[in-house]
This record gives sequence, structure tokens and C-alpha cells, in this order.
Amino acid sequence: MTPFVSDISSTGVHSPTPSGITQLESYRSLFFPTVLVGDHKLGGISSTISSYESLLLRGYIVDSVVLFHDEFYRNWEYLTPYFAERNVPVTSFDPPPLQTANDDENFILTEKYYTAIVPKSESGPIFDVLHHLDDCHASRMRDLESMPRRTLDSIWWPFVQHGLVENENDVTVIDSAYSDFFSVYDPLHGTSHQQSCLGRQFDGSASWWTQAIGHSHPSLSLAAARAAGRYGHVIFPQATHLPALRLAERLLRDGPGKGWASRAYFSDDGSTGMEIALKMALRAFSVRKGNTLDSVTKKTLGVLGLKGSYHGDTIGAMDACEDGVFTCEWHSAKGYWFDPPTVSIRKGRVVITVPPAIAAETLPAMSTINAESLSWVYDIPCRLNTPLADVYRGYIQRTLESLQKHCGHKLAALVVEPLVMGAGGMIFVDPLFQRAMIDVVRGPRSPKHTPPDWSGLPVIFDEVFVGLYRLGLQSSAPLLGVNPDISVYAKILTGGLVPLAVTLASDAIYKSFLSKDKKDALLHGHSYSAHPVGCEVANATLDIVEKLASSGLWMDAQRKWTHCNTKHTVWSFWDPDFVNALSRMEGVAEVMTLGTVLAFKVKDETGGRCTCLYRFFIFISEFSYLKDMDQCQLRPSSHP
Amino acid sequence: MTPFVSDISSTGVHSPTPSGITQLESYRSLFFPTVLVGDHKLGGISSTISSYESLLLRGYIVDSVVLFHDEFYRNWEYLTPYFAERNVPVTSFDPPPLQTANDDENFILTEKYYTAIVPKSESGPIFDVLHHLDDCHASRMRDLESMPRRTLDSIWWPFVQHGLVENENDVTVIDSAYSDFFSVYDPLHGTSHQQSCLGRQFDGSASWWTQAIGHSHPSLSLAAARAAGRYGHVIFPQATHLPALRLAERLLRDGPGKGWASRAYFSDDGSTGMEIALKMALRAFSVRKGNTLDSVTKKTLGVLGLKGSYHGDTIGAMDACEDGVFTCEWHSAKGYWFDPPTVSIRKGRVVITVPPAIAAETLPAMSTINAESLSWVYDIPCRLNTPLADVYRGYIQRTLESLQKHCGHKLAALVVEPLVMGAGGMIFVDPLFQRAMIDVVRGPRSPKHTPPDWSGLPVIFDEVFVGLYRLGLQSSAPLLGVNPDISVYAKILTGGLVPLAVTLASDAIYKSFLSKDKKDALLHGHSYSAHPVGCEVANATLDIVEKLASSGLWMDAQRKWTHCNTKHTVWSFWDPDFVNALSRMEGVAEVMTLGTVLAFKVKDETGGRCTCLYRFFIFISEFSYLKDMDQCQLRPSSHP
Repeated sequence: MTPFVSDISSTGVHSPTPSGITQLESYRSLFFPTVLVGDHKLGGISSTISSYESLLLRGYIVDSVVLFHDEFYRNWEYLTPYFAERNVPVTSFDPPPLQTANDDENFILTEKYYTAIVPKSESGPIFDVLHHLDDCHASRMRDLESMPRRTLDSIWWPFVQHGLVENENDVTVIDSAYSDFFSVYDPLHGTSHQQSCLGRQFDGSASWWTQAIGHSHPSLSLAAARAAGRYGHVIFPQATHLPALRLAERLLRDGPGKGWASRAYFSDDGSTGMEIALKMALRAFSVRKGNTLDSVTKKTLGVLGLKGSYHGDTIGAMDACEDGVFTCEWHSAKGYWFDPPTVSIRKGRVVITVPPAIAAETLPAMSTINAESLSWVYDIPCRLNTPLADVYRGYIQRTLESLQKHCGHKLAALVVEPLVMGAGGMIFVDPLFQRAMIDVVRGPRSPKHTPPDWSGLPVIFDEVFVGLYRLGLQSSAPLLGVNPDISVYAKILTGGLVPLAVTLASDAIYKSFLSKDKKDALLHGHSYSAHPVGCEVANATLDIVEKLASSGLWMDAQRKWTHCNTKHTVWSFWDPDFVNALSRMEGVAEVMTLGTVLAFKVKDETGGRCTCLYRFFIFISEFSYLKDMDQCQLRPSSHP
Repeated sequence: MTPFVSDISSTGVHSPTPSGITQLESYRSLFFPTVLVGDHKLGGISSTISSYESLLLRGYIVDSVVLFHDEFYRNWEYLTPYFAERNVPVTSFDPPPLQTANDDENFILTEKYYTAIVPKSESGPIFDVLHHLDDCHASRMRDLESMPRRTLDSIWWPFVQHGLVENENDVTVIDSAYSDFFSVYDPLHGTSHQQSCLGRQFDGSASWWTQAIGHSHPSLSLAAARAAGRYGHVIFPQATHLPALRLAERLLRDGPGKGWASRAYFSDDGSTGMEIALKMALRAFSVRKGNTLDSVTKKTLGVLGLKGSYHGDTIGAMDACEDGVFTCEWHSAKGYWFDPPTVSIRKGRVVITVPPAIAAETLPAMSTINAESLSWVYDIPCRLNTPLADVYRGYIQRTLESLQKHCGHKLAALVVEPLVMGAGGMIFVDPLFQRAMIDVVRGPRSPKHTPPDWSGLPVIFDEVFVGLYRLGLQSSAPLLGVNPDISVYAKILTGGLVPLAVTLASDAIYKSFLSKDKKDALLHGHSYSAHPVGCEVANATLDIVEKLASSGLWMDAQRKWTHCNTKHTVWSFWDPDFVNALSRMEGVAEVMTLGTVLAFKVKDETGGRCTCLYRFFIFISEFSYLKDMDQCQLRPSSHP
């Protein structure tokens, strides 16, 4: 163990390093256990405690505080019980002798001093500290070694079949995380006494797509601390506080709600955000239908969507998706889901794959269509007048007419994950098809990009996965050329620190709930609605991300993907040459990328024949990651 | 404006005050805007930044940093851009003259120095700072004044009929919060220039019952910061980290899961925690029934509960409750809910009110039963053999037999909020009735307090409101004398800082999902499942609450409620004499209290006759609150 010694008596934990950032930030990725050298002088109580707090804010584990035994200020007297409450022992040592004019005398005094504090007997306060550090280390090792078994004995993981995960080796023990990487316990890595048992693991799923500016970003820790210190949490209905108000205003004015949304409704996660969105849409539809809907119909209103959709795991969010892998006792799918055309890159060529039912309507019939570039695929204005657009619209129109006669559920909303269906298997939907769905559902009024009112069916964009720059775009609405009536954001919203979701709604939707009767209100809330910590962290995240989005780092990446013949362009953090080369590899069936997402399907060769395809997804979890992407490309994801 | 000057060049922000706590903690309740006096000496960069971070951790707003212009260390050179990035201007002043041996000379030099830095022209750096402070103040005032209108224009509140809240005066502007109080903007309070426009408001609903140790508790801010700095958030399935593991282990071993639960399943709020609980119970039931349940029956399995139940606002949690005020388009109540007997204190007497259907079965028929004391009502072992217990069991048994023939839903789980139904209107249920429900549902095997397997129906305790000492009890299970098979906790779990929920389950329930097939797993998760910040804050909360629970403060309160003739006792933070006196007041219909909760119904006299009852609930949001309860009793709740 090499403890990191934070010496605040001279320059301190936050003293600048040659790179310009302070010591604490500079050493953070190494995550050493720490000995804090306290200050014995006037003001030393305060600077020792503040230094301790700055260390904690960066996640450092402070094992021990040491300082000189100054008989005048007696700082150790206050600090010992103060730190004992925090389980950190304080040890004070005699100060070194005062310097004299005589060099020989200085030498003798210093020698005597060191002999006294480090005696041959190997006993005394300095050895107590060393033994304590050994104990701390041993205790940490015991924790690391025992965590897999203890976890298997007490935790019930989400989405995990515990019957398939019974081995301790199957448990990833995360000791800390920084930037794009976990620091994980790896017993094989530490077989020799000298070697560290902690290894670096690339967070290939961006921790379920939540990370945006890297793990343990100090600005987010400080934002969380600031709001915790000012408010804790405060009740929200009929109340307001700056973090929530500022977040709402920026999301509506300069964020994904720009130009269409008038209201922000806060909740805790994508699933609750979608439940709120669905309640908004279904009520807006019911109100418009007046008294024509009976109570049974209201309970079974349906949604229109795409096969492969996923909107979360609470029953309401599940009911907006097909029965499939994600199902359970109370799940009752309510609606109709189209099989979508998809986009991918195969052997360097961008292709649109059209499902058989739609392909049968194209003339000549075809199931894959070659596209000139990715940017062309996403250039909706250019594609709106193509024959394929007519085929899409015709197919959707006829299907809806047939559904009106035969579907058990009266359709009341259109619900889409724009551009990519994440949990469904990173399905990149042909954006023209989603645009066609919206146009058909909205009817002749749809071309207006800023509808003053919803028409046909209310349109929900579930942008929990795709929104806030996961795909390089703040929102997919400008690219699709149409605004939703309701949209939902979570995950990246808080930069990957704490849960928070927001549902944005147009004024027309909001007004469906307005009356003088409390019963008509949207009676949905969670205890921690708009919690200040989440809102403050979200504001800090958006500050950073918005700065990055106009930075040279991003523009360099965008430039590589720009085609001179298209105005509307999509881009990826992944180099186009790399993506092209990957798509041409023998075992790779297809590749797709947008923004931080790289998805590819690998052929599974059995008996010489390709029997099935495995999907892999890799994310960049830090938006400023391009700077050292070269060294990390294609490290395996920690979670498939 | 009176800025708080944090002078770190002498003793610092964390220097101890006479009370023993440090300056920062001591002044926090006053929440002054702050000028940080930085350190110009060696190590001053670090101590200035650390002091700033300690200030932020307590929520202080740092408007300005000032320090001496030391030409040797030049700390201002580094600190100016550092703080500019954080929107805090740094101003440096010439240092005072060095002291000489000549007093007259000292006087002249000092006079000259002060004249130079505070010139008659009223210009120069110190005036720049003052103007900046004025600007900050003006900007804060503009925010406070504009927040009501801006909030009404952008926020969609949970549970609020915006059609009834159109006036700016209806918006509570929360500027900060500390301990049991909000600091709220009150324009009437600040009509004169001298008066502050911020008033103190008692958080009478404990911010939707989330608060446990007071707002902005520094231990929780530090816990949040510590986990944010060490992990940020990290993906949870098949992974583990210490904050989550430690929390799971303590909840299972020493917490509400003690003696019966084997697994902890993390989610984001009470509603998602209950969805998980319901999915667990319904699956366990389905698995036990083997192939006898068809897919339609599985979608419509029912729960048994009590009228007035509330389990959250996601559709699954709603479907476990009756149709009522909380309803919406997709809500389809699945189950049967008994009208419960209730407990209250009227005119100083404890009474049990039995609903007509049950009262008709008592001999002689009666609708209110006098009880000797609150403790007797909650002494279940003593009451199990009373005639009333027989009446309850008989009534429940016959109702269930009738339901088996006539109910549209096959009952698959018993779901109760033990002791109190909070959102339903603070209904204190006769605990004997809940015990009888469990006993009847479980059948002859039920008396075992630690069932090795569930029998009859799986039993869910929704302890989101009542659990973790809200009622003075860690869990209601020991009081009811039976353990659940599944239970849910949230709200107090994180001491009222960030959202986090946990669902505990017995091993028998867990094993219903075990197989070698992923499809059989509980496929429910949220991106921030078991987020380290929430888990670390929860651990810090439980540390503090557990210490308080055995403190003299609590024991004093408990002693007041102890009756010598009962072993099992319930108690309240509210003084029994006060509760007794309140119950005897003219306008008060009834009162009830347990732990931190005080609920009373006030008669609404119209034309001399009592026409309806209004309910009021007051909570103590800080568990250590008894110390100064006298000055705050019965301040109005900020949210009815």
C-alpha cells in the first residue's frame, strides 16, 4: 500500500500542479488511501477540517490524520474527538527542533528528533499510525474479497437471473470509478504480493447509458453538495426553489422543449417520466373525446408504437409496449406496434432494411435499400418527397384504417423512441418511417413544426435514451422536422449521478388538466419530486455539456462526418474510417453509430453457417472522451 | 444585506465556536450571503479553495473572494481564473503596512493605508467588491420576486390543480431550508427596507414525510459528496459496491428485514418499490399455482387490502388500490378492499371505531369501543383472544369465502400499509384487524412469526410511510407479531435528501424467480438502481437515527407514554398531556398520534351543526426535535 500523503501544512491538498489543476484532481484517478497531514498552527483546525472535506468530495478515503503536537494552539485537542466521530484517528507528534545558527547543532538536534519519533523499539505514535494503516488496508482487502459472496447472499439484482449467476467470479466488485473507467477488484490480477488487486475496466455501457461527463466529476459532486447544504430536499407542490425553476426554464427555452413545450413535470426516472407522459396523452385524448368514451374504454385506450419499444418497467410504461421478454403478471399490452425499417452499415455501405410487409408494397419489391451516406438517411426534408416516403405513408395509413375496425384498443397516443430503440436491441429505426407515422397520425395539419395544438393523436417522444446529446443531438425533434406534444428525459439529465426525470408538455396538453376541480389535476407525484440535489446536478451537467457541444473537440468529430451535399448532418464520436473498417470485418454482420453509440452485430458461426447474430453496444460515457479514445477503442463492455 | 465574512486568514471557516461546533455549522441557520477572505500566504491557494468547498457543503452562497495582494506567493493569480470559472470574482488588496517599533509611525502608516484602500472618491477595488455585493443582492431579490410568476409559467406541479393556483401569493418560494424549517420569501414581511423579506416556515409535512434528521444535515451532504466523489453512479446488475452492499446487509440483519428477509432489491421511490413488491408477490403466487392460471387470469390477479390504501402513482401501484380520488385513464383497480376499524382519541378517551358491516356482527352491536389506553390497543398478544378478534376473523373469513365465488379477480396477495394509511387521510387502522387479515389469509400456519415459506397469499407490508421510525418503530412487524413476505421502504431511508427505495423479500419469494432461464428473472430495473449517493446517504441516515433511537431524548418521550400494565408499548414525540388537551378542545373531533405523527380532525361548524370534518396532519421532521418542540407546537403545515 502506498498511501497518498496530503500535506496541508505547507502547500495543501488543493495546491496547483504543473498541469494547472490542483493536487486533489490530479491524483484522483490513482485513488490512493490517504493520510492527511493536519495543521498545528493558528487556523489549523479549520484548514485541516476543510482539507478533509475537499478530500471527501473527490472520494478519497482518509485513513489517518497526523499533525504536530503544538502546546500553544493545541489543535489536536479539538481535532481528535472531531475526527473520532468520523472514525478517523488523529495522531500528534512532537514538532521538530527549532533551527539554530549552528549547523552542527542542527544536525545533532535533528538526528535526536528522528531517533525519538522513530525509535528502534518500533513503538510509539508513528508506529501506531503505521499499524493502523495496515489494519485499514487489511480491512479493505477483507471487504474486497468477501464482497462477491456477501452480494450473492443479500442482493437481488435487477434484470439478473440469479440461477445463472452463482459464482463469485461473476460479480464485478467496483471499488471506485473515475472518468470512463471502473476500478474493479480482480483477484487474479493480484496474485503476487507486490501487484495491485485492482484493475481498470472500461464502462462500456456508460453505466446503463447514464454517464455523460465521466464518473465522479468534481463539478457534479460540488453541485450535489451545494444543494444538499442549502435545501436538503423540500416539498414541491405549490412551492418552488431555484434549482428546479432554472432547470425547467432552460429545458423549455434553450433545451429540448424549445419552440413547443410550455411545462416541465419532474419525477424520478425514465419509467415514472413515461407514466406521466402517458397519463398526459391519454387524458388529453379523453378530454377531447368528451363524453363519448365510457370508463371501460378509458381503461383500455391503446398506443401506437414500434416493435422493440421499451419505456421502462413500471406497469404503465410496460403496457405501452408489446408483450415480449419484458413481461410479468399484470402487464397487459395496450396498442399496436409496427415492425420498423432500420438503418445499418454493412461492408462500408449504408443500407435501409425494410420489413417484408412494407417491402411488398415497394415497386420493385425490395427489402434493402442502399443509401448514399448516413447523413442522407437522416436528411428528412430531402427524403420526404421520395417514393419510399409515399410507400411508408400509404402503408401506415392503410394499417391504421384496418386497426380502427379490428383493434381491441382505441388508439389514443403515438409513442416513439426517436431514431434508436435502446433496450430493444439498439435498433436504429429509419427516421423517415417515424416521421411518416407522425405525419399520418396528425393528418393534414402535421407539416406545421410548431403545432399550436395537437391533432390526430398526441405524440410522445421517449428521449430518455436518445436525448441530451447521447446521439450528438440535444433532441431528435429538429432532425425529424416535427415537435412532439410530450417528451421525456432522464439518464444523462443528471450527468450520471442521481435519479431525476422530467416530462415536458405543450400548452395544449397542459390545458387538458386545467379546471376549477382538483379531481381533474394530474394526481401523480413522488416524495422527492424535483429534489434540489438532482436539479442542481442537472444544471451543472447541462452547463458542462453545452460548453462541450460547441467545443473544438466536438467540431473535429462532426467535421469528419460532414458531407458537403447535405445540410442536415448526423455524426458520431467514433471515427468514420474505424466504423467503415469494422463493418468490413469478416465476422461482423453490420455496424451502426450515432453520437456516442457504437452498435454492431457479430455473426455466430456454427458448423460453417451463420446461425444467429449477437449484438454488442459500446458507449462513450464521457463526452470529452475523444481526447484519448485511441487507447481505449473496443474494450469490452462490462454489461452486454 | 449583512454579508457573513468568512475569515480564513486567521482562524478559518471551521474554527470552533464556544458551543463546540464549528463556525460554519453555527451560523448555518442564518444563511447569510458570504464573502470569503482568502489566504495570501504559502498554502493559501489550497486553504482558500478548501474553505470555499466547506462553505458550499453547508449551502452558503459565496459572492466574493478577497485576499491580500502578496507579490511573493501571488495566490490571487491562480485564484482569480479558478473562481471566475465558478462565477465568483476575486479581489486582491494591498496588505497593511508592516508593524514598526514606533507607535506614532504605526498610526500614520495605518491611517495612510486605510485612506488609500477606502479613498474619498469611493472608487477602487474595495468599492468594486461592495458594488458587486449590491448587485448580487439585487439579483437575488429579482429572483425571489420573479420566482412565483416564473414558476406559474413553467412548472407543472404534482397533485396540483393549476386552475386553482393562479395567484403568485399561492406559491411558496423556498430560499433555503435548515433543520425543521424552510426559509421562505415573504414580500409582506419585508415591506420596510430594514426588514428581511425571508421568513421562517415550519415544514409541517416533513416535506411529504421524507425528513428524519432535519433539512440540510451536514452529515448527509458529506455522505452524498463522498459517494459522488468515489463512484458517481455505477451500473448495478451483476456488480456490487460497498454503499449498496452495506445498506442491504444492515436492512436485512439489523433493520426491518431482521428475522425474515433474505434479499434487498433497490429502486427509486415508493411507487417503483411497490411495483417490484407486487411483481414479486404475483409471480410467487403464479408459480405456486403452476399451470393452472391462464394468461388472462395472470393479467387480472387481484390483491386484498383496505379502503383508503395508497401505494404510489405508477399504474401498477395504483392498480393495487381502489378507484377513488387517485385515478386516471389506465388505472384498473384489481382486488378487494375492506373498510377498516380505526383508532382515535376523543375527549381524552381512546376509542376503536368499527364500520357498520363489522359492527353488525358484534354482540351487542356497537360501532365504537372504548380502550383503556393506546398501548393496550397496540398490545396485539393481549388482544388476540378477545371477542373482537373472533369477530374480525369471522368477518374476514366469510368475506373471503364470498369473494372466492363472486370476485372478478383471483386474489393473489395481501397488501397493507401497517398501522397508518398515510395518503388515504392518516387513517390509523385498528392493528388487531390487520393482524386478523394476515392470520386468516395465511391460514393455520400463520402463528409462526418467522414463516419458512409463505402460506395462503404472500403478504406485502408497504412501510414507505410508516417504516424506519416515522411511528417511533423501525418496522411495524414486531408490534403486529407477524412478519411480511415482502416489504418496501423509501422516504426516510435517505433521511430526506435523494430518492431511493428498497424492497425486501423472504427467501421463499426470491426462489420463485430462480431458474436457469433469464426469462424467469425479475426483469425490472432503473438506470440508477442502487446509486451509490443514495445508498451512502441512507447508511449515514441510519447511523444517526439508530443512535437517536437509543438516546435519552427518545427514552424521555417513550417514558411519558409507558403504561405499567403493558409490555408492548407505543409512544409519540408529542406530549400525552398536550394530545389529551387537544382532543378535548371544542372544535376538535378527534386526535391521533404515534411517533412523529400528530393528526386531528376539526369540526366544520356551519349553521350551528357539524357538517364535515377537516383533517390536519403535523409531523416532526427532525427526530431530535424534542429539544425545542415547545416553541413550535402547532405551527401551520406548509402543505395540508
